[in-house]
Amino acid sequence: MTVPTNLRIDGNRLLWRLETLARIGDTGDGGCRRLALSDEDREGRDLLVSWMRELGLDVRVDRIGNILGLMAGERAGPAVMLGSHIDTVATGGRYDGALGVLAALEAVAALKEAGITPKRPVAVIAFTNEEGVRFHPDILGSCVWTGTLSLDEAYAIRDDDGLAVGDELRRIGYAGELEPGGVEAHAYLELHIEQGPILDAEGGGIGAVTGVQGITWLEFTIEGEPNHAGTTPMKYRRDAGYAAARIISFARELTRMIEGQVANAGQIAFEPGNVNVVPRKAVFTMDIRNPDDLRLAAAERRLREFAEEVSQEERVAISARDLARFPAVRFDERLVAAVEAAAAGLGKPVRRMVSGAGHDAQIMASVAPSAMIFVPSVRGLSHNPQEHTAPDDLVAGANVLLAAAIAAVNG
Amino acid sequence: MTVPTNLRIDGNRLLWRLETLARIGDTGDGGCRRLALSDEDREGRDLLVSWMRELGLDVRVDRIGNILGLMAGERAGPAVMLGSHIDTVATGGRYDGALGVLAALEAVAALKEAGITPKRPVAVIAFTNEEGVRFHPDILGSCVWTGTLSLDEAYAIRDDDGLAVGDELRRIGYAGELEPGGVEAHAYLELHIEQGPILDAEGGGIGAVTGVQGITWLEFTIEGEPNHAGTTPMKYRRDAGYAAARIISFARELTRMIEGQVANAGQIAFEPGNVNVVPRKAVFTMDIRNPDDLRLAAAERRLREFAEEVSQEERVAISARDLARFPAVRFDERLVAAVEAAAAGLGKPVRRMVSGAGHDAQIMASVAPSAMIFVPSVRGLSHNPQEHTAPDDLVAGANVLLAAAIAAVNG
Repeated sequence: MTVPTNLRIDGNRLLWRLETLARIGDTGDGGCRRLALSDEDREGRDLLVSWMRELGLDVRVDRIGNILGLMAGERAGPAVMLGSHIDTVATGGRYDGALGVLAALEAVAALKEAGITPKRPVAVIAFTNEEGVRFHPDILGSCVWTGTLSLDEAYAIRDDDGLAVGDELRRIGYAGELEPGGVEAHAYLELHIEQGPILDAEGGGIGAVTGVQGITWLEFTIEGEPNHAGTTPMKYRRDAGYAAARIISFARELTRMIEGQVANAGQIAFEPGNVNVVPRKAVFTMDIRNPDDLRLAAAERRLREFAEEVSQEERVAISARDLARFPAVRFDERLVAAVEAAAAGLGKPVRRMVSGAGHDAQIMASVAPSAMIFVPSVRGLSHNPQEHTAPDDLVAGANVLLAAAIAAVNG
Repeated sequence: MTVPTNLRIDGNRLLWRLETLARIGDTGDGGCRRLALSDEDREGRDLLVSWMRELGLDVRVDRIGNILGLMAGERAGPAVMLGSHIDTVATGGRYDGALGVLAALEAVAALKEAGITPKRPVAVIAFTNEEGVRFHPDILGSCVWTGTLSLDEAYAIRDDDGLAVGDELRRIGYAGELEPGGVEAHAYLELHIEQGPILDAEGGGIGAVTGVQGITWLEFTIEGEPNHAGTTPMKYRRDAGYAAARIISFARELTRMIEGQVANAGQIAFEPGNVNVVPRKAVFTMDIRNPDDLRLAAAERRLREFAEEVSQEERVAISARDLARFPAVRFDERLVAAVEAAAAGLGKPVRRMVSGAGHDAQIMASVAPSAMIFVPSVRGLSHNPQEHTAPDDLVAGANVLLAAAIAAVNG
């Protein structure tokens, strides 16, 4: 049957579920620590599975530990999937990931409790190891689900203690039998806190996420000469540290020259690192992002060209190696419009925006029409015990998720 | 009697003495390691004292371990002092310091062996702990000699193993009885390798050193905000790392704006130091030097003003604390002219220059007319096993020292 569009999730129960899950791995300072495949992750998974069973969902766990709670539709076939992840970083907050999974659960609950059988199946999905703190890379579960990463590769990844993903999955009882990707997706929707300051700074409301920025991480290495900082005239210096400073300064100019561009130099080291020795070597990282891959490529090209100029001027050798490279992802226009319409229908201000952080949705976008919904993060804080989203925003986001899901189910 | 000006030192014996001293603490790669008050330093001191005694000098050791070898003059009174130091850095070369002491010894030997009794006493002096590697600060022996540092303070200084200067002096048998400063100086002359590239790059010859640069060491601390490098729009960032890069870049501009100015950022650290986190904190050092104290002060003022501008633009807090501060030293014009004349008299090209590094002579300049003589360092290398000065230059430098000393003794 066509699902009526005036359904609402149970806001109080969503908040209670968020509280209840947050008690697992509670760090006592408002934060959570549920590293992927840890005992706390298992406890969180067990709770999620028990809630899925209470709602009568068909719980399936795939071979990489992704958990699905399926609600049958009038006909079989691709499911409208709603989800996110429940693992956290070491000093994480309560909402990053958890909100998307528990709001999905409440959206399905709203359908169930209204006695509705939607045309298509609906699934809640919690992906394994989105954070990538204990096991690299991040967004692991969705990469295996979509075939971007093979199961064998994923199983072999080890944490700092040498424990492997495969072994830890078995240890916590979440090495399931479903083949990853074994449930086809009609659409994928993910509600998430923004993890950035834009919505909070600009009056709140809902973000209709149109895509995820392309990301390039470069590590620059500059080799100069370790001269005496007092006795060496400036014209003889080959100063790797100064060259690094020039490039880092230029990166800010890049962000003014190229629309949508951001840039960050987060790590740096000089050698030998003495006050009175001209740096022989400088190594620093550059994280550049743009929603548009062509613009991102242009930014990288200009950055490399500038480095080349500095290399010539200062007579230093400059090289840059890739640390990471993710293309930009554009979400499905129909779904984005559905999110906008859903927010508007709930009387919520809504703005289109691009996600600056990576999410499972960007991986799911390669196999199904996908989109995301953002709610404000107070002061943009995330991966931080102080991460906070107002209860009204949490509930509003979940209702937008439900409404957008209904549009996808009916469509 | 008036000393004839055509005396020459015994060049071969100077080279042999340099070789012989270099065997003590030989690091096997061309370098030397005779850290102040170590067993190797004692061995070097013992050798020096034995050579002084062979020449019939009156050997005196002061309470901070400075070693003097006195040659009486026709009359008592202030001595013409020639010297430097024999301690080295951990991976030092063979000539830094040793050349000045052993050339002084050969200068006195030349007088002795010519049967001359100069009008004034002449003294060879080897100062304790010029390098300041094991015990901070550097130029310790000359600071105590001149009263800039008290004996009690000096004795209490400890190395990384907790051993104190006073105890180590007694252990190696060089806690002497002479009061520091107990022999008055009529003049002080120091021959030293340049430790910089100028003479070597510009055709060799002798440097008549007119003074020592003023030195200011600052440590800048910048406090920003640790934002997400993907989700935080540039306009919201308070990037401590970018602010640091701006200031380091500006320091190069300073060296173009202010005559004689050099600048170096040798150490840097960002916190938290993650690729995708905007640096919350950046700490870096700035070593600025100028032969002219007013210009150095202007450079520091402009640097601080620029930091203030950056602080406002980027909404970061910037503070700078002093790590070290030495005023510029001007050597005695008559002695500098005597060095020039001595070099010219020997047919050597000579150029006036400023020392970029610190030396005992800058401290001695506070109690007696002082000057220095530089000989070329190949490729400017120093504090390095590859430190090298051609034998001809070593001998020429020693002859200039002798000739300048004769001028001072006769004058």
